[in-house]
Amino acid sequence: MSKRIVSALQIGSSPEGTTATIEKILSYESQIKESGTSLVVIPEATVGGYPIGSNFGAYVGYRTPRGRGDFKRYFKQSIKIGNDPECKEIKTLEGLSKRTGASLVVGCIERDSYTLYCTMVFIDPQLGYIGKHRKLQPTASERLIWGQGDGSTLTVVDSKVGKLGGAICWENTLPLLRHSMYAKGVQVWCAPTVEDMPMWETIMKNIAFEGRLFVVSAVQYVPSATEMGYGVPIEGSDNERILPGLESSDEPCLKGGSIIVDPFGKVLAGPLRGQEGLLVANIDLDLIIEGKYDLDVVGHYSRGDVFQLTVNEKSTDIHFV
Amino acid sequence: MSKRIVSALQIGSSPEGTTATIEKILSYESQIKESGTSLVVIPEATVGGYPIGSNFGAYVGYRTPRGRGDFKRYFKQSIKIGNDPECKEIKTLEGLSKRTGASLVVGCIERDSYTLYCTMVFIDPQLGYIGKHRKLQPTASERLIWGQGDGSTLTVVDSKVGKLGGAICWENTLPLLRHSMYAKGVQVWCAPTVEDMPMWETIMKNIAFEGRLFVVSAVQYVPSATEMGYGVPIEGSDNERILPGLESSDEPCLKGGSIIVDPFGKVLAGPLRGQEGLLVANIDLDLIIEGKYDLDVVGHYSRGDVFQLTVNEKSTDIHFV
Amino acid sequence: MSKRIVSALQIGSSPEGTTATIEKILSYESQIKESGTSLVVIPEATVGGYPIGSNFGAYVGYRTPRGRGDFKRYFKQSIKIGNDPECKEIKTLEGLSKRTGASLVVGCIERDSYTLYCTMVFIDPQLGYIGKHRKLQPTASERLIWGQGDGSTLTVVDSKVGKLGGAICWENTLPLLRHSMYAKGVQVWCAPTVEDMPMWETIMKNIAFEGRLFVVSAVQYVPSATEMGYGVPIEGSDNERILPGLESSDEPCLKGGSIIVDPFGKVLAGPLRGQEGLLVANIDLDLIIEGKYDLDVVGHYSRGDVFQLTVNEKSTDIHFV
Amino acid sequence: MSKRIVSALQIGSSPEGTTATIEKILSYESQIKESGTSLVVIPEATVGGYPIGSNFGAYVGYRTPRGRGDFKRYFKQSIKIGNDPECKEIKTLEGLSKRTGASLVVGCIERDSYTLYCTMVFIDPQLGYIGKHRKLQPTASERLIWGQGDGSTLTVVDSKVGKLGGAICWENTLPLLRHSMYAKGVQVWCAPTVEDMPMWETIMKNIAFEGRLFVVSAVQYVPSATEMGYGVPIEGSDNERILPGLESSDEPCLKGGSIIVDPFGKVLAGPLRGQEGLLVANIDLDLIIEGKYDLDVVGHYSRGDVFQLTVNEKSTDIHFV
Amino acid sequence: MSKRIVSALQIGSSPEGTTATIEKILSYESQIKESGTSLVVIPEATVGGYPIGSNFGAYVGYRTPRGRGDFKRYFKQSIKIGNDPECKEIKTLEGLSKRTGASLVVGCIERDSYTLYCTMVFIDPQLGYIGKHRKLQPTASERLIWGQGDGSTLTVVDSKVGKLGGAICWENTLPLLRHSMYAKGVQVWCAPTVEDMPMWETIMKNIAFEGRLFVVSAVQYVPSATEMGYGVPIEGSDNERILPGLESSDEPCLKGGSIIVDPFGKVLAGPLRGQEGLLVANIDLDLIIEGKYDLDVVGHYSRGDVFQLTVNEKSTDIHFV
Amino acid sequence: MSKRIVSALQIGSSPEGTTATIEKILSYESQIKESGTSLVVIPEATVGGYPIGSNFGAYVGYRTPRGRGDFKRYFKQSIKIGNDPECKEIKTLEGLSKRTGASLVVGCIERDSYTLYCTMVFIDPQLGYIGKHRKLQPTASERLIWGQGDGSTLTVVDSKVGKLGGAICWENTLPLLRHSMYAKGVQVWCAPTVEDMPMWETIMKNIAFEGRLFVVSAVQYVPSATEMGYGVPIEGSDNERILPGLESSDEPCLKGGSIIVDPFGKVLAGPLRGQEGLLVANIDLDLIIEGKYDLDVVGHYSRGDVFQLTVNEKSTDIHFV
Repeated sequence: MSKRIVSALQIGSSPEGTTATIEKILSYESQIKESGTSLVVIPEATVGGYPIGSNFGAYVGYRTPRGRGDFKRYFKQSIKIGNDPECKEIKTLEGLSKRTGASLVVGCIERDSYTLYCTMVFIDPQLGYIGKHRKLQPTASERLIWGQGDGSTLTVVDSKVGKLGGAICWENTLPLLRHSMYAKGVQVWCAPTVEDMPMWETIMKNIAFEGRLFVVSAVQYVPSATEMGYGVPIEGSDNERILPGLESSDEPCLKGGSIIVDPFGKVLAGPLRGQEGLLVANIDLDLIIEGKYDLDVVGHYSRGDVFQLTVNEKSTDIHFV
Repeated sequence: MSKRIVSALQIGSSPEGTTATIEKILSYESQIKESGTSLVVIPEATVGGYPIGSNFGAYVGYRTPRGRGDFKRYFKQSIKIGNDPECKEIKTLEGLSKRTGASLVVGCIERDSYTLYCTMVFIDPQLGYIGKHRKLQPTASERLIWGQGDGSTLTVVDSKVGKLGGAICWENTLPLLRHSMYAKGVQVWCAPTVEDMPMWETIMKNIAFEGRLFVVSAVQYVPSATEMGYGVPIEGSDNERILPGLESSDEPCLKGGSIIVDPFGKVLAGPLRGQEGLLVANIDLDLIIEGKYDLDVVGHYSRGDVFQLTVNEKSTDIHFV
Repeated sequence: MSKRIVSALQIGSSPEGTTATIEKILSYESQIKESGTSLVVIPEATVGGYPIGSNFGAYVGYRTPRGRGDFKRYFKQSIKIGNDPECKEIKTLEGLSKRTGASLVVGCIERDSYTLYCTMVFIDPQLGYIGKHRKLQPTASERLIWGQGDGSTLTVVDSKVGKLGGAICWENTLPLLRHSMYAKGVQVWCAPTVEDMPMWETIMKNIAFEGRLFVVSAVQYVPSATEMGYGVPIEGSDNERILPGLESSDEPCLKGGSIIVDPFGKVLAGPLRGQEGLLVANIDLDLIIEGKYDLDVVGHYSRGDVFQLTVNEKSTDIHFV
Repeated sequence: MSKRIVSALQIGSSPEGTTATIEKILSYESQIKESGTSLVVIPEATVGGYPIGSNFGAYVGYRTPRGRGDFKRYFKQSIKIGNDPECKEIKTLEGLSKRTGASLVVGCIERDSYTLYCTMVFIDPQLGYIGKHRKLQPTASERLIWGQGDGSTLTVVDSKVGKLGGAICWENTLPLLRHSMYAKGVQVWCAPTVEDMPMWETIMKNIAFEGRLFVVSAVQYVPSATEMGYGVPIEGSDNERILPGLESSDEPCLKGGSIIVDPFGKVLAGPLRGQEGLLVANIDLDLIIEGKYDLDVVGHYSRGDVFQLTVNEKSTDIHFV
Repeated sequence: MSKRIVSALQIGSSPEGTTATIEKILSYESQIKESGTSLVVIPEATVGGYPIGSNFGAYVGYRTPRGRGDFKRYFKQSIKIGNDPECKEIKTLEGLSKRTGASLVVGCIERDSYTLYCTMVFIDPQLGYIGKHRKLQPTASERLIWGQGDGSTLTVVDSKVGKLGGAICWENTLPLLRHSMYAKGVQVWCAPTVEDMPMWETIMKNIAFEGRLFVVSAVQYVPSATEMGYGVPIEGSDNERILPGLESSDEPCLKGGSIIVDPFGKVLAGPLRGQEGLLVANIDLDLIIEGKYDLDVVGHYSRGDVFQLTVNEKSTDIHFV
Repeated sequence: MSKRIVSALQIGSSPEGTTATIEKILSYESQIKESGTSLVVIPEATVGGYPIGSNFGAYVGYRTPRGRGDFKRYFKQSIKIGNDPECKEIKTLEGLSKRTGASLVVGCIERDSYTLYCTMVFIDPQLGYIGKHRKLQPTASERLIWGQGDGSTLTVVDSKVGKLGGAICWENTLPLLRHSMYAKGVQVWCAPTVEDMPMWETIMKNIAFEGRLFVVSAVQYVPSATEMGYGVPIEGSDNERILPGLESSDEPCLKGGSIIVDPFGKVLAGPLRGQEGLLVANIDLDLIIEGKYDLDVVGHYSRGDVFQLTVNEKSTDIHFV
């Protein structure tokens, strides 16, 4: 049977920090179970936070001490990723995956030595943590706070809903990255993001159509700072925001827009805007076969004789032998 | 000054054949002049025709004699492309370009020896014919009648509206082809097509956004066979349709959908559906700079260290030395 | 004879833009001639400008339209680099080099398609433009406006004062980049920068000592915006600043600090602070031999059996063949 | 809590030999305790001695018998290093570490078969001896008396003050060695040395800044031979100096210059010159995070795609299986 | 105190057989005691005999019955080696060692099942039998009667005169074997042999110099068969020689040439030729330190990064688990 | 025919410097021709000089300025090696080789960037420069002035007299290096040296015997400084010695001792002492076959199952790709 249920959990980081964010994710446990979903995609940077609107005190030519302090506080909300027992947030998420029977794809801020990465983590109900993908190219001000992933985490994993892969936020616009992922046989494209502009729907539909696969994009929803009671953040006070960047405003910080699309570009669910929630859709993997009959950009439709793509998957880490 | 006018001529091939089609194009001369446009994109296969609905008598394992006859008639409507005086349709189009001052990008069926290609031709008001691009990968049944272009016609040309390049119909879905064109610095993406599904708009907006360039897509509009009086085409009669494939129906054969989009994915004109017409928009090339500031998939946003693309632009023709 | 004269031209970009900046450089012609110098290093981003203090409207998660406008204006002050006649600023600098007999190493903002690079250009009195180095890793907010160079511009060139190479601003802190340059036999390390902190002197002395070579670091000196009469920049007015980032203040925008150091870490001239000027020093290349007797980190002192460095000098550009 | 106390013990080898030197170190026990320090770095070659000014009778092409005798006496002051009970100097130092609660990093002359190495030893208050680093590349005349370490002792250990690593004397100038250590996550860089030139301060500040870590450099202080009463050393007499190399003079043999620097290159304590003493400073490990925000040469600032470093950590010893 | 006395017992096997040979060795007991020597090296194959001049009836393609008989008689003179009480020759030698206080290194023909080995046995005054080394590679016709040792007997033992090791006869020419022994720290190289050519002196001096150690080589002295009264050996008679191979001649069967050399290649005693005798020399182990100062082929002079030697010390015996 | 003539040119560097030394070599042209030799080995460091007796002002812990000056003068006498036209000394030697028909193996001081190497150069009469070997491990004070070769120049070349290889001066004592060379099939071992002690003859005879090959060792002969009129070298005077290290004395600086040995260790010519001269011998390569019948340490006599040698021939240079 090729029919499955997939979902995007539209949620936002807690301004209280990572511990509170993890609790918030766990609060969806019964809803996930009831939905019967086999996959939950959680937005970019949910665990660790997306410091919307901060410039981390960076100007061309200098940085402010307050910006450095912002970075330090942000750094401390990031997590370590791996199978080590010290990766306790991963352990907690593994528990959720096991109890619900759903694969999780979770947007996290990863700490590796002193560099942060915007990472999506793949967690399997049986196997636990099975891999990760680091954003290759942070966008604009993100380059101030996140490192660049290298080719070693173009991860694709198996799951009950087929092969999972994808990209984070604006790296979804990279044609060569997408082509690489298509070539690895991705069937359900996971796109955690914080991007809430209307154009996002276009980009997601295009990937579904071009790649002939299902797209599940989870977008953060974060209410306005006012609504969250963060009207007057004062550094050092009890009311101190943990995530830098939440300015007082009546507008939502991040509006959401999670969406699920089929291989012909047809929207199956969403876009969900202006609220938290679990967005669910039924998918039929056989539809991919039908789509590829028309168009297979990494198969009968490609022109490998003209376009030769080489993907360097070697880690750029220093190599101790 | 970075401001220009561009246009798509939504038109269909004449069932009378290529001579009639050329006349039809010429009939738009005064409208082109008046619009002040510096670029006219004319749909895929307009010159030579798109035999919608024919199967050219092809079945797995055999072809019918009638299909062979269809091909012969179709072949005879194709044109030769180049600077030779014998390329008389090209000469005619050069005249139009010169008189209107507009660059033309024209979808043609090209004959090279005994193979047909789906080609877009670039004509400059001063220089005349300056290049062509052959569709790299025909879609589905097109593979029965058209050859595959090779890497030697990934043509990009200069014009008054900036660098012109693009792709034909579904090859617009190829990530590697697009990336190659972006790397060549295309500023106005020309997308002649016959594709009239609603998803086309998504694909065009995505290219504009991803490539940070202007998109001008011209789609054929062909009325219903009924409307054209081709209700009972009989093989061998005087009333014989010249283009195979026009079946009797009340639905338009090709519905149109021409569109012009800016580098942020915003639609400037169109989509125009259900009629012929010249679709016009003002563009400001400086918007590309602003767009690239955010995203430049072949520049600051690329990851050439991870994704190394080699494009083979050598002709696959036999090489005499 | 191993004795030569080298110099750093401490200067700042003109807020009037690139044309005015080039004129300013040319105004030093007679002083350069009289000094007898065979090398003039000109600071980072002098041609094109360093938009100190601007954040180009970038915040985590979004950008402002004004920031995009800032980028557009900045983009228009950048130059193309190469031997093409259209690279007119390069031609002008070649003239200066020829007339003074001095090699020039000039910090420029380079435009390549739509991406800007922070580049140092090597100009030879006889040969004209002979090479360039693009900054590999922009710092902090620079990542918003400049692309990353790749390994193909780790350029080292011959000159009357020996082999020239170096690095721009903070990439001087990269141990592996420096080691690569040392291995290429650099004798005079050119370090154009805008960095005016006191620690810069330490970094320069350390490179001289570690690399056993002469260091010529040219730092921009830009007076306060007030002093330059850019007190009330109003967008769109005649008084509009061309370079974004010059805020009204009584402090110099960039304080300078150009310095020349010998292979034992001894300061030969400078640091020059708080004014424009041509900083000159006599050097004796034979001192390198004496220094290397003690320490040669790429020769008798290296441990290539333990530390094997591979430098990828391939361009990451798309490759058309 | 990220705040700690670190120290450098500026001391010199006793001309009486290793036993006396160990006693001298032990005499600082109460001062170490009172200071509250969690780390004591002891200079290069303190245990075993640095035979300043000797040439061990070596000339190009021959050696003198007296030089051989010098080596034999020097050899006998060296120590064995490891967990064996026969390594009695190590046992004694383990006791000091345990009683004071401070990690020790001690410069020793190590004997392995008939070759001597200049080694730094890591001793933990709880675990005792936990590792060592052998100088990779002795400088100048040191090459006559010390072997080269191999890649198997690029040791980094955990401690109360964070990860400890470092380099000895002039190997601090090796860019590739430093990069390797940074990649291992060193937080407190230990630099035992005898180098007392003013430039040492520059080198230490540069490492702190470049590596974004704390530097604790301990330099030997050895008074003048005259002051120590070694005016007329006569071979074979009761007054025979044990360490070769102490010539009669009123100048200190080694002037000291111990220093402690923070990750921004700011000097926290020292340089201490012209006397023995325990140099102490408070450090806050969180400052590393702030520093790495700007610059992380092994993280977001590295260009692993361009510079690929492989470190061979295999021992070059003969391998018996 | 590093001063010791060492000796080589130049002796030959008795033609009467092993029992007689052992008695001959014991006859030197008082001379050994008086000499004060702490080490006695006894030549290769002394116990068991060296059948000089026999070919054991072996020809390419066949062997003679007489040759088989020769082997049987030779086999019966061989001994078992170990701590078993049945190893009675070893027990006897242990007594000699205990009474004289001298370590013995004795060349024996060892029987292990039905294979003979040319073995050197190490006997300690206190501990008795402590190890053996089997010749790795027999020379020429020796390969007809002796097996090859494996890597499990590259034995080095401690003694009053320092670490003992070495090689037998022509295996002294193997560079890799010697390097392995040097790496184990041998201080007194024992070289039992029957080789009496003048070149032997060169080989021994070279080992001493190259390995920076003392060499004690003991060579068999066997008078002429005539002198021993073996003028007309008749197979099967009472007068039958026990050792095959002693041909009637006036020349000594084995001429001797025992020698003792210091770590600089200086001959301390010998070569002793043409007679039996105990060759004695005083040695000072500290001379090794002085020699290693110049040259240590397994220490500061080695290039383990270029030449990586792995020694397989596993026994090649069948392994029952 | 396996018979050939080989020779060692016993000569010394001219104190006038490299130009004069090359002339001196050329002065032997007619004698080389007349001898009929096919190989001329020229001593270690002849071209460039061996600064006997200098310590280059190096003492443990410091260097004198005069020592640095010595190094600079020494550096300037070194040569570049390769096929470049700028390697003019190599070109001159190629001429000599061509005119005499003899292969040359020449000891040179090689300059590579700022490190000097002690190198032997192989020059072929037809092909010119064909390879080089850099000394792997300089001895004692040589480590102050020469770098270490790596495994990439374990060069063996073909010639009329068979395969040539060898080692320079004391690296002839390295067992693993020799074994590596034997394994490459060297037939004529070239040993350029300055070592004039009597033990050198032993070392050469041992190599010939152990390796079963011909040895041609050329030793420098340099008369006493007095004899050369360098009694009162004054820095800066006309009488300034170019090579540092020649002290006034009546003893020859280097006594010579060139020697030619056959594969059984038999001396064919020399040792020549106390004078310059061309030492010549007839060799018969077939003798190697006879010698290997007995002993082949890299063939039937080796024990590769016990001793596994891995030779790392990769260059340790930085690798640009």
